[in-house]
Amino acid sequence: MQVKGYGATSAEVPVAPIVFERREVGPHDVQIDIEYCGVCHSDIHMVRSEWGPSIYPIVPGHEIVGKVVAIGSHVTKFKVGQTAGVGVFVDSCRECPSCQSGQEQYCDEDMTATYNDYYRDGKTQTFGGYSANYVIDEKYALHVNFEQKDLARVAPLLCAGITTYSPLRFAGVGKGHKVAVLGLGGLGHMAVKFAASLGAEVTMLSTSPSKEADARSLGAHHFALSTDPEQMKALKGSFDFILNTVAAKHDLDAFLGLLKVEGKMLLVGIPPEANEFGAATLISKRRSIVGSMIGGIAETQEMLDYCAEHNILSDIEMISMQDVNAAYERVIKSDVKYRFVIDMKTL
Amino acid sequence: MQVKGYGATSAEVPVAPIVFERREVGPHDVQIDIEYCGVCHSDIHMVRSEWGPSIYPIVPGHEIVGKVVAIGSHVTKFKVGQTAGVGVFVDSCRECPSCQSGQEQYCDEDMTATYNDYYRDGKTQTFGGYSANYVIDEKYALHVNFEQKDLARVAPLLCAGITTYSPLRFAGVGKGHKVAVLGLGGLGHMAVKFAASLGAEVTMLSTSPSKEADARSLGAHHFALSTDPEQMKALKGSFDFILNTVAAKHDLDAFLGLLKVEGKMLLVGIPPEANEFGAATLISKRRSIVGSMIGGIAETQEMLDYCAEHNILSDIEMISMQDVNAAYERVIKSDVKYRFVIDMKTL
Repeated sequence: MQVKGYGATSAEVPVAPIVFERREVGPHDVQIDIEYCGVCHSDIHMVRSEWGPSIYPIVPGHEIVGKVVAIGSHVTKFKVGQTAGVGVFVDSCRECPSCQSGQEQYCDEDMTATYNDYYRDGKTQTFGGYSANYVIDEKYALHVNFEQKDLARVAPLLCAGITTYSPLRFAGVGKGHKVAVLGLGGLGHMAVKFAASLGAEVTMLSTSPSKEADARSLGAHHFALSTDPEQMKALKGSFDFILNTVAAKHDLDAFLGLLKVEGKMLLVGIPPEANEFGAATLISKRRSIVGSMIGGIAETQEMLDYCAEHNILSDIEMISMQDVNAAYERVIKSDVKYRFVIDMKTL
Repeated sequence: MQVKGYGATSAEVPVAPIVFERREVGPHDVQIDIEYCGVCHSDIHMVRSEWGPSIYPIVPGHEIVGKVVAIGSHVTKFKVGQTAGVGVFVDSCRECPSCQSGQEQYCDEDMTATYNDYYRDGKTQTFGGYSANYVIDEKYALHVNFEQKDLARVAPLLCAGITTYSPLRFAGVGKGHKVAVLGLGGLGHMAVKFAASLGAEVTMLSTSPSKEADARSLGAHHFALSTDPEQMKALKGSFDFILNTVAAKHDLDAFLGLLKVEGKMLLVGIPPEANEFGAATLISKRRSIVGSMIGGIAETQEMLDYCAEHNILSDIEMISMQDVNAAYERVIKSDVKYRFVIDMKTL
């Protein structure tokens, strides 16, 4: 079917109206008419081929919430009229140990990304959520059991939410733990909410004193300026976990030194340059650095249900589809609290 | 008491005969007359103030085996005539959580190093095992239950042995695991022996094809040339653990990519420059980098007993005390299989 969306035909042009082809609804598919789509920094990287050459035309968007309007003959998980979500991937090999254990994001054959990728046939292109609808195998779609008024604030949970929820759960964060969050952006603001909700004592580490009030209102119990050597010194060896969301080059060592013995830095941000650290900082206290990428379908559903139960939503600025290029410039300047979400009625 | 040893009076001079002062045997102390002392690369770094300014005069040596010749009035753990060992540290605060849990090497107040350090009084200097004897609180001395003929080969277990044993045990390495060892030196050769003994399938990764035969004779099941892109590509995503003993700057990313999902790089080598890695390599497969430093007293005893039971010994070249400076030059060139041990009869 022909679908209207917003996309780019090359790395050099802005995002603009585009019409592209989606597959018809197959026996296992659901068609979701999109109501809201979050703007993730990776959308910008991929539209501009900043993470290697992208596949053009590209239609970004992987924080998708909408209504199920059609289902295939074998679909059992969804009914027409239900609210559903799509996250960062829409398929995987389904056979490797990671897929079998519900960690499809680590698929041996690589997950199929929601956009800027090819389906398992290797030739049909995926197009993202800056568009009227998505057609997806029901196994890779999520139930969204929130009130209608909250749906825009749910959209960012599909990437920013699960990206921070998964490492906190994998690490077993809970009561009695001291957790620092590094970087207060789309990921960081969700990390603070989740860590606090899980019962941890949360410290926001930031380079900007202006962020203290916001950090506290999001749930942080403490705030420290990472540019102040005295404050950093006082925190030496004090955290069980640091959730590091920073996607720009920074000195890992200064933060690793804030971890207790056997403390873990949970790494979710991907700076363009290599990360550097001194081996002695890890070795001298049996510290570790642990990578984590989004979450599997089962865990993403768990996260959404956890958020619905605990009233956790993303803080957003709603925009019209036509404002997306201006929004990109503000994302690059970290000038958003904390996620832009596109109202797809404006498409 | 006045003790004869070998040491250096500044960073610029070779190691030479020296006489220094040790404390008398206190109520909780044992005096060990040293039979063998291993030569660790850190001896060279510290003699030459390569890890920050050292305390001079310095008497190096922290792989010590000898006979108990005197005990204090309150000593219960040792009897005169027994064989005992001293490793990398000889005291710690005894009160912090790490000390209380038998992980004295991660002491909040820092362990007291066997040499190039001060005792807890902050003013009495520690002198190492290139000397006639050591006086040590019995709590920090180890039982060495090996045959006399093997004692020289036991000495390196006190540093090279525990440094590789501890991370393998902490990581739970055993049957069914694929383990790569990076670097075939003093640490690496012990890592191969331990990993194989614990039941893992062991691959030696080396830049030098000449090391294959040795690696196999030490217990490695496989050998791969890390300089061969084809061999490295074939090993992508194949290891549960990589024990990284390399102490020179190298590309962590190339090796991190050889780890499976949730695979761990166990880091024990300390290169002088910062380590670099791409965040995506960790994140994309939930891999981690875990530091580890020697082991606590209880675990060091466990390691020694494990070695005695499983007939694991270091491969060594015995030298006279007078040959130590020449040995240093060979250590720097990695020209030793795999540890020099000083026969202290030659002092």
